[in-house]
Amino acid sequence: MIVTPEAFIQGMRQLAAGVAVVTTADSQRRAGLTATSVCSVSAEPPQLLVCINRQSDAHDMVHGSGAFVVNLLSSDQQAVAEAFAGAVGIHGERRFHRARWTRLATGAPVLEGCLAAFDCRVVQAVSAATHTIFVGRVEALRAEPDLAPLVYVEGDYGLIAPLAEPYED
Amino acid sequence: MIVTPEAFIQGMRQLAAGVAVVTTADSQRRAGLTATSVCSVSAEPPQLLVCINRQSDAHDMVHGSGAFVVNLLSSDQQAVAEAFAGAVGIHGERRFHRARWTRLATGAPVLEGCLAAFDCRVVQAVSAATHTIFVGRVEALRAEPDLAPLVYVEGDYGLIAPLAEPYED
Repeated sequence: MIVTPEAFIQGMRQLAAGVAVVTTADSQRRAGLTATSVCSVSAEPPQLLVCINRQSDAHDMVHGSGAFVVNLLSSDQQAVAEAFAGAVGIHGERRFHRARWTRLATGAPVLEGCLAAFDCRVVQAVSAATHTIFVGRVEALRAEPDLAPLVYVEGDYGLIAPLAEPYED
Repeated sequence: MIVTPEAFIQGMRQLAAGVAVVTTADSQRRAGLTATSVCSVSAEPPQLLVCINRQSDAHDMVHGSGAFVVNLLSSDQQAVAEAFAGAVGIHGERRFHRARWTRLATGAPVLEGCLAAFDCRVVQAVSAATHTIFVGRVEALRAEPDLAPLVYVEGDYGLIAPLAEPYED
């Protein structure tokens, strides 16, 4: 059985995930992309990872600057997700004009009003086919526990709802 | 600013994720764990990754067998998630008795009736603090596109609901 890229992509559409905008900056410019390939790695030390396509503008800037922010989006930030996914025809620096930004430890852009922002220093960069897995050590974080997450599955954005019937053993 | 493990764990509770049971087997035994640290890596070749704590029973068996299955759970499989998370006081092989299993390419256990199962051969194992990041090449997959995903955020299981108001630019 050969798993084609198409079959894999179709299967992966079923992996529900929180939506993040991953941002970075050098002395001149900012870059970013909408990503769902983000996960926790370790709590001690606090580390997470993000997988970034080597073709993406942000990829080389993360490599160069050694820093990135994972901005987890709240349910009212779908417009930011779409802008950084390239879905609304705006590119480059102009995408940043749709929201307000600040900085924490590394200087990479932190989205105001997001669910949680993890400001990371790259500690490992692992090449894996078309992508690089960047492991980041979290140097600063900001969270808004009262906001709801924006999630993505089957090509659509959504919200999380409680299970209709609680599990009973 | 120092980010403590506690602050990191609290922040990461906001990263919504689909719930998977990651399984593996050697010639004698099966092992598995409930995981949300799963993400897509590349489509060509089809690869995904999972982060597994080195303390977990399944960790050494994944290393030894070189294979694992990511079984994405459907919204009616919360009981399986809880069993493999160690939340209901059953351990080891007995956890497998709560569901039906089959095999695809590698021989690692594939959960019947799950949302999607990705049967993987380990192609990279990257040590990262307390965890190993296993990158797997997908050798076989099975998906049930009509099922809904089980998701986890803020310490609770949930479902995905459409956004209340579609985004309008």
